[in-house]
Amino acid sequence: MTDLTSGRRLRLGMVGGGQGAFIGGVHRIAARLDDRYELIAGALSTDPDRNRISAGELLIDPGRCYASYQEMAETEAERDDGIDVVAIVTPNNVHYDAARAFLEAGIHVICDKPLTTSLEDARSLARLVKESGLIFVLTHNYTGYPLVRQAREMVRQGILGRIRVLQMEYPQGWLATKIEDEGQKQAEWRTDPERSGPAGCVGDIATHAIHLAWFITGLEIEELAADLHTFVEGRQLDDNAHVLLRFTGGAKGMLWSSQVAPGNENALRIRIYGEKGGLAWDQENPNILTWSPLNDVPQKLTRAGNKLGQAAELATRIPAGHPEGYLEGFAQLYKDTAERIIAMMQNREPDPASLLVPTVDDGVQGVRFIEKCVESHYLGGSWVVF
Amino acid sequence: MTDLTSGRRLRLGMVGGGQGAFIGGVHRIAARLDDRYELIAGALSTDPDRNRISAGELLIDPGRCYASYQEMAETEAERDDGIDVVAIVTPNNVHYDAARAFLEAGIHVICDKPLTTSLEDARSLARLVKESGLIFVLTHNYTGYPLVRQAREMVRQGILGRIRVLQMEYPQGWLATKIEDEGQKQAEWRTDPERSGPAGCVGDIATHAIHLAWFITGLEIEELAADLHTFVEGRQLDDNAHVLLRFTGGAKGMLWSSQVAPGNENALRIRIYGEKGGLAWDQENPNILTWSPLNDVPQKLTRAGNKLGQAAELATRIPAGHPEGYLEGFAQLYKDTAERIIAMMQNREPDPASLLVPTVDDGVQGVRFIEKCVESHYLGGSWVVF
Amino acid sequence: MTDLTSGRRLRLGMVGGGQGAFIGGVHRIAARLDDRYELIAGALSTDPDRNRISAGELLIDPGRCYASYQEMAETEAERDDGIDVVAIVTPNNVHYDAARAFLEAGIHVICDKPLTTSLEDARSLARLVKESGLIFVLTHNYTGYPLVRQAREMVRQGILGRIRVLQMEYPQGWLATKIEDEGQKQAEWRTDPERSGPAGCVGDIATHAIHLAWFITGLEIEELAADLHTFVEGRQLDDNAHVLLRFTGGAKGMLWSSQVAPGNENALRIRIYGEKGGLAWDQENPNILTWSPLNDVPQKLTRAGNKLGQAAELATRIPAGHPEGYLEGFAQLYKDTAERIIAMMQNREPDPASLLVPTVDDGVQGVRFIEKCVESHYLGGSWVVF
Amino acid sequence: MTDLTSGRRLRLGMVGGGQGAFIGGVHRIAARLDDRYELIAGALSTDPDRNRISAGELLIDPGRCYASYQEMAETEAERDDGIDVVAIVTPNNVHYDAARAFLEAGIHVICDKPLTTSLEDARSLARLVKESGLIFVLTHNYTGYPLVRQAREMVRQGILGRIRVLQMEYPQGWLATKIEDEGQKQAEWRTDPERSGPAGCVGDIATHAIHLAWFITGLEIEELAADLHTFVEGRQLDDNAHVLLRFTGGAKGMLWSSQVAPGNENALRIRIYGEKGGLAWDQENPNILTWSPLNDVPQKLTRAGNKLGQAAELATRIPAGHPEGYLEGFAQLYKDTAERIIAMMQNREPDPASLLVPTVDDGVQGVRFIEKCVESHYLGGSWVVF
Repeated sequence: MTDLTSGRRLRLGMVGGGQGAFIGGVHRIAARLDDRYELIAGALSTDPDRNRISAGELLIDPGRCYASYQEMAETEAERDDGIDVVAIVTPNNVHYDAARAFLEAGIHVICDKPLTTSLEDARSLARLVKESGLIFVLTHNYTGYPLVRQAREMVRQGILGRIRVLQMEYPQGWLATKIEDEGQKQAEWRTDPERSGPAGCVGDIATHAIHLAWFITGLEIEELAADLHTFVEGRQLDDNAHVLLRFTGGAKGMLWSSQVAPGNENALRIRIYGEKGGLAWDQENPNILTWSPLNDVPQKLTRAGNKLGQAAELATRIPAGHPEGYLEGFAQLYKDTAERIIAMMQNREPDPASLLVPTVDDGVQGVRFIEKCVESHYLGGSWVVF
Repeated sequence: MTDLTSGRRLRLGMVGGGQGAFIGGVHRIAARLDDRYELIAGALSTDPDRNRISAGELLIDPGRCYASYQEMAETEAERDDGIDVVAIVTPNNVHYDAARAFLEAGIHVICDKPLTTSLEDARSLARLVKESGLIFVLTHNYTGYPLVRQAREMVRQGILGRIRVLQMEYPQGWLATKIEDEGQKQAEWRTDPERSGPAGCVGDIATHAIHLAWFITGLEIEELAADLHTFVEGRQLDDNAHVLLRFTGGAKGMLWSSQVAPGNENALRIRIYGEKGGLAWDQENPNILTWSPLNDVPQKLTRAGNKLGQAAELATRIPAGHPEGYLEGFAQLYKDTAERIIAMMQNREPDPASLLVPTVDDGVQGVRFIEKCVESHYLGGSWVVF
Repeated sequence: MTDLTSGRRLRLGMVGGGQGAFIGGVHRIAARLDDRYELIAGALSTDPDRNRISAGELLIDPGRCYASYQEMAETEAERDDGIDVVAIVTPNNVHYDAARAFLEAGIHVICDKPLTTSLEDARSLARLVKESGLIFVLTHNYTGYPLVRQAREMVRQGILGRIRVLQMEYPQGWLATKIEDEGQKQAEWRTDPERSGPAGCVGDIATHAIHLAWFITGLEIEELAADLHTFVEGRQLDDNAHVLLRFTGGAKGMLWSSQVAPGNENALRIRIYGEKGGLAWDQENPNILTWSPLNDVPQKLTRAGNKLGQAAELATRIPAGHPEGYLEGFAQLYKDTAERIIAMMQNREPDPASLLVPTVDDGVQGVRFIEKCVESHYLGGSWVVF
Repeated sequence: MTDLTSGRRLRLGMVGGGQGAFIGGVHRIAARLDDRYELIAGALSTDPDRNRISAGELLIDPGRCYASYQEMAETEAERDDGIDVVAIVTPNNVHYDAARAFLEAGIHVICDKPLTTSLEDARSLARLVKESGLIFVLTHNYTGYPLVRQAREMVRQGILGRIRVLQMEYPQGWLATKIEDEGQKQAEWRTDPERSGPAGCVGDIATHAIHLAWFITGLEIEELAADLHTFVEGRQLDDNAHVLLRFTGGAKGMLWSSQVAPGNENALRIRIYGEKGGLAWDQENPNILTWSPLNDVPQKLTRAGNKLGQAAELATRIPAGHPEGYLEGFAQLYKDTAERIIAMMQNREPDPASLLVPTVDDGVQGVRFIEKCVESHYLGGSWVVF
């Protein structure tokens, strides 16, 4: 339910996400789903026509459809009814500058991942966030799934015992051929180092998988060895990555991400094995979490089903058996972010669940992961210290 | 995207759906998801406090929080900025009177299922809808799933050949014990003949299953034999139903619905076999449709995946592998309803896809199904002509 | 392991099962698998050439390859090293006479199902078995699966509480077209009333499904209503059957068997719901049994895995995760039969597990089930007392 | 069917496999299943009592129960009715010497994997096999599954195009605690470097996984990097292994094997992605092979189902939907081996299908794989040339 005390929806602006974009529409649905936001301003495209038309479709007042994020940040900051928070949903290379602009204007930021295209920028942004005192949320949306939060709670409560092995994979098949040459907009920028940064599938999807491992277990990488490869001829960035991982405390792991694996759509999967049992979760079937206690039989935990802890219960809307999916998980981050912003407005502690949302520090770690993978790759796949 | 010409969201009112309700919240999310509606009026509860508090939480103007649906219908009908459409989300026994009130006030209606608690009422309502020229949508929400629409398109195009066998099942386990005595509000009214009508699980869930069969195949029931049973002692309505079906044209079918089957959450499933192949779909895993052509191997069709027809494509929002679920399917009915209403406002033909939404006639058939099952039951499970 | 005291393998004869047969080869593998039998005599075909050649392939001494089962029964009964037991694996219409011949010759019988083509014959055979004191085993082979026995043990121990609902289904797709006209030998006799008896898929597969229900729960049918249908034009026997079931004690059930359901290979499945939980088992994935305790989460029991009872453990050969299948389940009946025969030879009580094998009485019940389904069918699908 | 010309079963001896062993019983069932062998001699245990009792249980003539494999090799070689072939089913450290003894005695050998405990021994054995002209089969039993052979045929026919990515995994959970200290015989020798060789799970299970990759694709490893680890304190050999792989021709791969992953029983799985599509197969569900052609929908190929090639058809016994499993796959190697031996006896070319069985050269490659993993491990997980 919408918070009673605030008495209004948060005012949201958006950078990027005009016609033809993918993730912008997702952010907008996510913002609407739990009714905490109204989208009232935008710099939706650098193409003026697309910007204007997109804003019209979204019923944004033409007066709050801005030619640039700079203009939007400045203008909105001065309005009494200016936006409370902005969503940055552009290609990666814009994140840094856009985020700076809004932070400097005193506006909270929700930003897509990866955080930036260089570790230096990422660290700079993290400092800026801290100095500003503002809220900065990075949309590693898979952490919004209730059963991912259940997994986290179980691991953090020690139910699995000391963690031994982490297996992450994130295969897709959509880039198995060179569709970036056929006008596929999503493929274009994701395979372009100018807009995407130094990595392809490592930045686009492996960062989600590694963040999931961090989110659930809290383990840190000590060393990694990465074998990146580009299978599609003429492509500039990696479209397949195999990464070996050593975590502090002795756990070992593996991460495979690929965009050239036909038959896989968006098959992010994580399995975690500890001394006392194993957990398995699959993004394409997100309403199930399999828990296998040592010397016992596997159990099927289901979203909103029996035996779940509080973290999962707080992140679900409808009864068991009524599947929630990607949009609901994404919406959870928006809902939690709203709670954090409203709590700040009200000078109170936010609901603890809302502290689960990924932050700028997670973004720094993600960019560091990208850089370390690329570093290992240039060293022939050698182990590098994280 | 929101229709440009209309230039505004549709104004929505709601009857029922105050605190503690289940389906009201679902309707609200469904209405918001594709950004076609704003909820601005409500008669959310017959309990004045609950009504007022619920309206506040939903940011409904106190002046448009009504004590009764009658008052709401009358008042809103007179306002220039009155609601365009109302969502009726009460227990079944209220549907008829509430729907009448809004239809008579010239307001379009979205109504939860089953339509009414008697066939006479259902028919009366159907007449009223026709006379009014208004739009009336019954939320058999499972028809909003893209792959259900794909199944329909395939059957209607003759890809399965003449249909031979239909297997429907809808097991749940939540009423395996007498939780209606423990203050579970959803269980209370669903097991109460006063509010639910003459049937329990037949009305609550079997109607969804049979509507799915109709929606996909267009076949009509010729005869049925129903064995209804109440397993939980002291309960007044059926909590398990086994129904044999004979369809016009010679197809045969079976329908099992149950609320006393532990391990099943909301396991609506349909399988359809024709001369040229078979289809299977499972609501708990709704992003997959299995198509088994005769003398060939089974194929896994996925939401937004390869080889889908137009009906499925029009009913999906995000790429394959990003699971959509129950709320998205429900939202599809709201989106299609908006298209129908806006088309009427604009004096144009609606998008054909929007004509797929269940209507008052489907509601009449559903109530007829309930009555025929009850009739067969009172005849000891004999075959009765439909 | 082979019983030490017996010090030899049982001598086995076979009626039917020559070249081109299906189930004969299965019986032979089943007999060999646990090393309790040697096949030394046969009347494998009524075609002399096929009989002789088949015997040669099976390394049967030409002197013990018989022209008829009558000759085999008489001759073997007189030999000191005559067969201990015969396997009858012919089309259904031969079962009765062949079984009589061996029982009258004092030879134990393993017979395929259904027992006979009429209830009168079935009862006559049951009397003969009792008078003879011999062992008679009916190969309802699905009862040999370890997890089917686990299900039985759980139900019989009351773990599910009072049983409420039984859902059985057995769909296949192989007879969706008229392949009996294309020289498919298996299809030929199964669709021929002369050889198959009064029912098609009801006799061939529904009998397996209903026996499974009996085996696991011990419940008896009180009444049934059957809607049989022949979808393939020109076929004489039913190829699809829908049956409603009422059991003594109040449980209700449904059984669907079909041979015209493309995409289904041999999809025998049973689900059982009691007051305290539900069980589900699927023959095509026989190493898993799903147990869903009331108000708890579903558990995956696996063959040779954790938490199994003695019945399952006694019926498995290799560790968990090494899938056993159809042949191993079938072999279990042969192994248990050997134990019963050897125990009789040794004048001792057989191992209790061996008493689980289906008997002639199960065969009588199966034939009764066929006749009652056909009776209901001729009464337009009415309920008939069992 | 048994070969007619040979007119007899092959005479089989066995080394190892006495009471308490696991794989010996599997070999015996495998040998019996297709009726090509009779077990008539054995050196089943170095413990004289166990040897004698085991032989008795197996109905082996006491005169052919030998105290040692040396004695057995010599004595049987001199008999006119001596064994044709021996199965060596001991712990790994015995393979080399035992195999030598039989090869030198002119007896064909079926040997469990891994071939030997050192690469030097493996190569020596390979030379000996070649010089002897005898048949030597290594029981990488997973290659006997029909759908594994189907996968091989599809890859070799170019249906997947050039191979890009191979993902192998083989997790188990049974050694998650130190059960080798609790008298579990299987655990004891597998964790003992004296009997198992230089590697634990790498030798025991990763060798199966890598052999599967070779068998299906024919690709050779160019380089690998292995991160081996022992999680259970006090254990001497690795119980978890992560291996990165680079193949000739540019394909990349990953292999994870583990014995400390609770919830996994024997979960060998392989996925292969080429330019034109992907294949996935899972040993615990071996009757399904998923084929995902590029830009098309995933297809479910089933054992004995539609659209299979000859290799799969030749390796199956019973119709689709009647699950075959581990024992049948294992039996396939015995059946193929019999064909090779009989063909040699008859001075004819063997059936081409029988040439698919793994040979001593596969064994050399497997031992090389073990040594390279261990080498990489000692180099801190560095890449090593294969």
